[in-house]
Amino acid sequence: MFFHVKELQYNAKPDRPDPVYAKKLQEILGGQFGEITVMMQYLFQGFNCRAEAKYRDMLLDVGTEEMAHVEMIATMIAQLLDGAPVDQVEQAAQNPAVGAVLGGMNPQHVIVSGLGATPTDSVGYPWNSRYTIASGNLLADFRANLNAESQGRLQVVRLYEETTDPGVRDMLSFLIARDTMHQNQWMAAIEELEQIQSAVVPASFPQNLEYQEVSYQFLDFSKGEESKQGRWAAGASMDGRGQFEYVADPIARGQVPKLNPAPAFVHATPGMEPVVANP
Amino acid sequence: MFFHVKELQYNAKPDRPDPVYAKKLQEILGGQFGEITVMMQYLFQGFNCRAEAKYRDMLLDVGTEEMAHVEMIATMIAQLLDGAPVDQVEQAAQNPAVGAVLGGMNPQHVIVSGLGATPTDSVGYPWNSRYTIASGNLLADFRANLNAESQGRLQVVRLYEETTDPGVRDMLSFLIARDTMHQNQWMAAIEELEQIQSAVVPASFPQNLEYQEVSYQFLDFSKGEESKQGRWAAGASMDGRGQFEYVADPIARGQVPKLNPAPAFVHATPGMEPVVANP
Amino acid sequence: MFFHVKELQYNAKPDRPDPVYAKKLQEILGGQFGEITVMMQYLFQGFNCRAEAKYRDMLLDVGTEEMAHVEMIATMIAQLLDGAPVDQVEQAAQNPAVGAVLGGMNPQHVIVSGLGATPTDSVGYPWNSRYTIASGNLLADFRANLNAESQGRLQVVRLYEETTDPGVRDMLSFLIARDTMHQNQWMAAIEELEQIQSAVVPASFPQNLEYQEVSYQFLDFSKGEESKQGRWAAGASMDGRGQFEYVADPIARGQVPKLNPAPAFVHATPGMEPVVANP
Amino acid sequence: MFFHVKELQYNAKPDRPDPVYAKKLQEILGGQFGEITVMMQYLFQGFNCRAEAKYRDMLLDVGTEEMAHVEMIATMIAQLLDGAPVDQVEQAAQNPAVGAVLGGMNPQHVIVSGLGATPTDSVGYPWNSRYTIASGNLLADFRANLNAESQGRLQVVRLYEETTDPGVRDMLSFLIARDTMHQNQWMAAIEELEQIQSAVVPASFPQNLEYQEVSYQFLDFSKGEESKQGRWAAGASMDGRGQFEYVADPIARGQVPKLNPAPAFVHATPGMEPVVANP
Amino acid sequence: MFFHVKELQYNAKPDRPDPVYAKKLQEILGGQFGEITVMMQYLFQGFNCRAEAKYRDMLLDVGTEEMAHVEMIATMIAQLLDGAPVDQVEQAAQNPAVGAVLGGMNPQHVIVSGLGATPTDSVGYPWNSRYTIASGNLLADFRANLNAESQGRLQVVRLYEETTDPGVRDMLSFLIARDTMHQNQWMAAIEELEQIQSAVVPASFPQNLEYQEVSYQFLDFSKGEESKQGRWAAGASMDGRGQFEYVADPIARGQVPKLNPAPAFVHATPGMEPVVANP
Amino acid sequence: MFFHVKELQYNAKPDRPDPVYAKKLQEILGGQFGEITVMMQYLFQGFNCRAEAKYRDMLLDVGTEEMAHVEMIATMIAQLLDGAPVDQVEQAAQNPAVGAVLGGMNPQHVIVSGLGATPTDSVGYPWNSRYTIASGNLLADFRANLNAESQGRLQVVRLYEETTDPGVRDMLSFLIARDTMHQNQWMAAIEELEQIQSAVVPASFPQNLEYQEVSYQFLDFSKGEESKQGRWAAGASMDGRGQFEYVADPIARGQVPKLNPAPAFVHATPGMEPVVANP
Repeated sequence: MFFHVKELQYNAKPDRPDPVYAKKLQEILGGQFGEITVMMQYLFQGFNCRAEAKYRDMLLDVGTEEMAHVEMIATMIAQLLDGAPVDQVEQAAQNPAVGAVLGGMNPQHVIVSGLGATPTDSVGYPWNSRYTIASGNLLADFRANLNAESQGRLQVVRLYEETTDPGVRDMLSFLIARDTMHQNQWMAAIEELEQIQSAVVPASFPQNLEYQEVSYQFLDFSKGEESKQGRWAAGASMDGRGQFEYVADPIARGQVPKLNPAPAFVHATPGMEPVVANP
Repeated sequence: MFFHVKELQYNAKPDRPDPVYAKKLQEILGGQFGEITVMMQYLFQGFNCRAEAKYRDMLLDVGTEEMAHVEMIATMIAQLLDGAPVDQVEQAAQNPAVGAVLGGMNPQHVIVSGLGATPTDSVGYPWNSRYTIASGNLLADFRANLNAESQGRLQVVRLYEETTDPGVRDMLSFLIARDTMHQNQWMAAIEELEQIQSAVVPASFPQNLEYQEVSYQFLDFSKGEESKQGRWAAGASMDGRGQFEYVADPIARGQVPKLNPAPAFVHATPGMEPVVANP
Repeated sequence: MFFHVKELQYNAKPDRPDPVYAKKLQEILGGQFGEITVMMQYLFQGFNCRAEAKYRDMLLDVGTEEMAHVEMIATMIAQLLDGAPVDQVEQAAQNPAVGAVLGGMNPQHVIVSGLGATPTDSVGYPWNSRYTIASGNLLADFRANLNAESQGRLQVVRLYEETTDPGVRDMLSFLIARDTMHQNQWMAAIEELEQIQSAVVPASFPQNLEYQEVSYQFLDFSKGEESKQGRWAAGASMDGRGQFEYVADPIARGQVPKLNPAPAFVHATPGMEPVVANP
Repeated sequence: MFFHVKELQYNAKPDRPDPVYAKKLQEILGGQFGEITVMMQYLFQGFNCRAEAKYRDMLLDVGTEEMAHVEMIATMIAQLLDGAPVDQVEQAAQNPAVGAVLGGMNPQHVIVSGLGATPTDSVGYPWNSRYTIASGNLLADFRANLNAESQGRLQVVRLYEETTDPGVRDMLSFLIARDTMHQNQWMAAIEELEQIQSAVVPASFPQNLEYQEVSYQFLDFSKGEESKQGRWAAGASMDGRGQFEYVADPIARGQVPKLNPAPAFVHATPGMEPVVANP
Repeated sequence: MFFHVKELQYNAKPDRPDPVYAKKLQEILGGQFGEITVMMQYLFQGFNCRAEAKYRDMLLDVGTEEMAHVEMIATMIAQLLDGAPVDQVEQAAQNPAVGAVLGGMNPQHVIVSGLGATPTDSVGYPWNSRYTIASGNLLADFRANLNAESQGRLQVVRLYEETTDPGVRDMLSFLIARDTMHQNQWMAAIEELEQIQSAVVPASFPQNLEYQEVSYQFLDFSKGEESKQGRWAAGASMDGRGQFEYVADPIARGQVPKLNPAPAFVHATPGMEPVVANP
Repeated sequence: MFFHVKELQYNAKPDRPDPVYAKKLQEILGGQFGEITVMMQYLFQGFNCRAEAKYRDMLLDVGTEEMAHVEMIATMIAQLLDGAPVDQVEQAAQNPAVGAVLGGMNPQHVIVSGLGATPTDSVGYPWNSRYTIASGNLLADFRANLNAESQGRLQVVRLYEETTDPGVRDMLSFLIARDTMHQNQWMAAIEELEQIQSAVVPASFPQNLEYQEVSYQFLDFSKGEESKQGRWAAGASMDGRGQFEYVADPIARGQVPKLNPAPAFVHATPGMEPVVANP
């Protein structure tokens, strides 16, 4: 169960309106790696958690914090939209600055939300839950989380570069710091889990059941061998169970596919001999 | 530019038809973490790569291999669909096994694709490109790749458990082995990049510009302190630049939001005092 | 079965081209609450109607009218797109007004539709049928319809404010009037149904089967008690069957969730004790 | 900012596993009118609220409660998935009951989420934010909320009919009761707002600017006059400003559309005379 | 403007309920090539038509007919859903036939639509407008229409094979016949347009501006030369302007891509030399 | 299995950066008829091909070529994004040209992809696999392919008109030429198949089972008879099996729909007599 307090986790006050920037800021609210994504991802990983209580607790802690970030960014966007010159249609033709704002802002910020934030990204695409994962395997999911926080912090930093508004930058500096923590946090949790299992997910699949001949081979499928120079092409494998091997000319081991003609009831290409279905 | 050879990378031959399993197998073809996802993700990371040539080359190597995996799984699905008892409608009521197959398979495998694989997941949801990321920051993207291969291998293993068909298991054992390599590969590439930069993405953002007071704090937003027991709550931070700190009762540092009333032209809630827009 | 006549229901003639406004106008054609939504929603409610004939007839009347609105707006958009300066690429750099138009219009209005309307909203997002509902319960659906007409009229009014073109405003004044009627109509239909059943949907569920202790409680889940001042916090409930009660500190009545460890075949987090599935 | 407590708002404990029902229950978690929808809708209406404090407070109260409902249903689904006979592939052919479960459950509940709830609906379609609305006009939005709670309660009741599990029914009886309250609440809030403005949204648009001749006409666009018998076809209009009028044969008032030929640069149908673009 | 008559274009009466088949039949209602697709595609092509009046008229004729097909199929689905054994939960475990129906039908047909048709396909995926095209070039669009009617008739035929219900087959035989006409119709319209322009779309682009060396070459990008045996590999080209040429080993004519390092403000991979942006 | 070579199929080098054009060019990369669509469509048609080997081979040849086109356009977009003035925020207000670029470009080209191409269209909508079809009937699918190449070439030509950059036009002239070939190719393949079967898809459905009375009737559902003037309204049908017939006033042949009242368990509109479900 959840409770709400009225204060924001951190200040969200722009120094001046900026409807064009409001459109861009939507990316870290409702985008692929925005705050709604991490909020929902952590909460569902927590709700579904079948492991030790400390993991469930930690996931719900962080998921609950991300809700506060959603609140901060939504509040910021609503204020950036104040002063959108939507009623200055006539002036737009004369004043290129007005025209640029009218052309560059998201029209739904007026027509649909009436100067409010929307759960969408910077091109107006709605948030959807396929952005999230809760697999039931915590090592896999913590890697998803580390990825999300890495992409997320990168996007916040880019947005920091795209404004000079001190109030906006102040809020972003807080989010950037929290993303520093969250990247560290997932790295710590990953390290903890890797110490009690193999680094390969899932660790519980018997190694002898995989086709081990290719388990540590780097297969070069393009002309040129620049890719040979990386850590991935030689030396001990990262899971400590093999040696990387570089294969310059990988071979095909499979059959040339030959599918049966279709049975009559699917009405496939005539002239091709049909097979009788289930004779 | 690309070339094709007719042989599959590895065998894809089921021992017997299984239309219900064909539906499930779609998950690793066109699902969130299926082969189309990694193929497109690696190719676009390669096409957009502005870093050293060895990274571009490596990304296109792996992306090109994933195309071969798409081909293998599609071929397998087409063969699993042979023998779908779609023309045995009358028998379905009498024969529960036939009824179960008809109810459990994906109807589009007959109506739409005529016994062919589709670029969709196991519930028929179409693949879309928001499953992928190519951010231009390789450390961020390699973490995305490690996540994708972790979730992907987990799903292949679960599908391995859901069949006893030796031919299907043979193909899956190959894919599982390649995912072992690919997890190792991205871990290796991550290690390589982390050695020339900080572990926090992006490393190029000046640390003094973030709100450092909270950069290493674990904030406990739920009742109970089980989350205090993790590696993330104490000790040196993973990036080596701070100490984890556990905060049992995080405080709100921000304002209570108070938005301006809406200007007249948005026709917001009447009875609330409107502000004159841009007076 | 349907028939078409060539005349529009009302004039749709702009005084001058305006490609940027054409993009915005798409919202009430193919947006969440645009004319395609109400057309499809009313038609499907009509097609599926299992109640008295007058309801089916009325739904199909209105659904058929909305098709005429789709036609009017599409026609308007096609004319607003005349004169898009797409062939004036060179001038755009010199002439900021041309640049603003080129930057502010929807590129698909040239590339994809060749100066025609598209079944999408003002950010180019395609219309989809999850915008509609036809539940089989008319009171529920009439509330959906009243909502759609309320959001729809609000959006049309906002678009009215964003243009000064007399021809466009003329058409919008017609649509606004029809939305006045349609809001009144659904209110009337709702009143009619509420008089023969309870105001709570569905009225047919036995009240004694619900957990009645909380059926009229307002639960305050945030700090502060401003929410106590509303009509919803005291007095007789709207369905006439209870008294609103304000609960300042709602309690948790449920268990602390504790999920079973996962069975082996899902390959969940290793190190956590697995349960044997179906022993 | 938000906080979490470990106890659920109400019990969520099934008496027995039921993976097929788990799939159905997803509808009220991640469906069009599921708990994620109302949670996000109320929170965004609250975050964007520019009206009196009591409305913002009330919206955030209810939005915060809905998060607790998300938690309850997710927890229930995870437990219903215990005992899915996924590892009994061999038995499925022999045992029709096992086959029916395997065919009727959502395959992603094993492959993707490892026996956890997903933020999707009962056919596996992901939740997306176009299900929600926060328009900035509270009367419009409260109607959206009343609709959502009406559809939502209807769906919960239908799900109640589709199970006999006492534990599941217990939880549903709580949700049904809360939906009783929430329908009452939005009706109360609507009544309150309608008393300080007109019933037509938005009330602030000057009536003389709409095409008033058709503001209260019911237009019959289909053969037959059953639709004449409703409250909407005669008597005073619901907003008290007009009289309903029934029009049996509505006329077309608009032009026959005639679009200009396309300019050369769009390469439209050859043989049709092109216009010179912007001569 | 449109009008409705109460009679269906053709009978839509099943002999018996069949909820599982109702789910499948959704494909030709709300699927990629279902009736909603052709209805919307033809109507928008008509609304946007800038060519001769006869084309606009013809498009609106057919679009209006497709609306009648939507109505017929929706009506059929609603009747097929009568008798869904949703209230026989207890019996399902005992009676495999009941279990198969419950597992094989679309759960939203009860929970969401209350035994009504939905604007979705056979896996429950909502219809969306990206299924349609109206490009402003009629030859291009008539080819889209011919494709839609070809895929559509194929799917109806497959559905014909999946039922033995005489009433359902009766309706499908009507739709199949109309699709015969519509394929013929688009072929006729295509022939008519090809006679006044080149067969290549768009005909108005000057041939000398394309890179003509490759305009009639078949490039063989895979091992093996089976593809040499087709009509496409030799002889006069279909547009009568060239000769097909078979190229067994196509060469790469382009550069090896080498992208500039990213400017500092995008925070790309550290360690790679950044370029100064816009020095 | 596939291989990659580093050279592009043709040059992809712009003469100057143009971030606004980069946004538009996305349409033919990740749009409905972009290169990803044809690549995936041809590959899946090839993978699923159950007909003669020459068709499978040909499909994989072309699918493999389209991958090279994806690569070319992605490379072009990355270079067009060089020099995006994203770090010139301050200047934007003063310099309308800078403002127009910032407003007109896709914000995700900086925030999400760091100056790289994305698998999306020109409004940022992600590519999804419902754009493709592989039906198992080659004549149907070749018509889909001819449509895709017709729409595709039309869009490339329109983009050619929207730039004057010699490098961009050079690449587009190559793509236009290849689309000339591909339209010719599918026309050739269609002709070949039509010679061994009827022109109507699927040819294998017995004609006597369709409702032949309407198989060649043009039904005029709108006022006016302009549509009578086309080839489709008179003369021999294109499949050579009938005569087109023009029907000015099509009749309704079906019933007036009358659905059964809903059973009690769906909780439909109260006051309407419920039927007892399966009594």
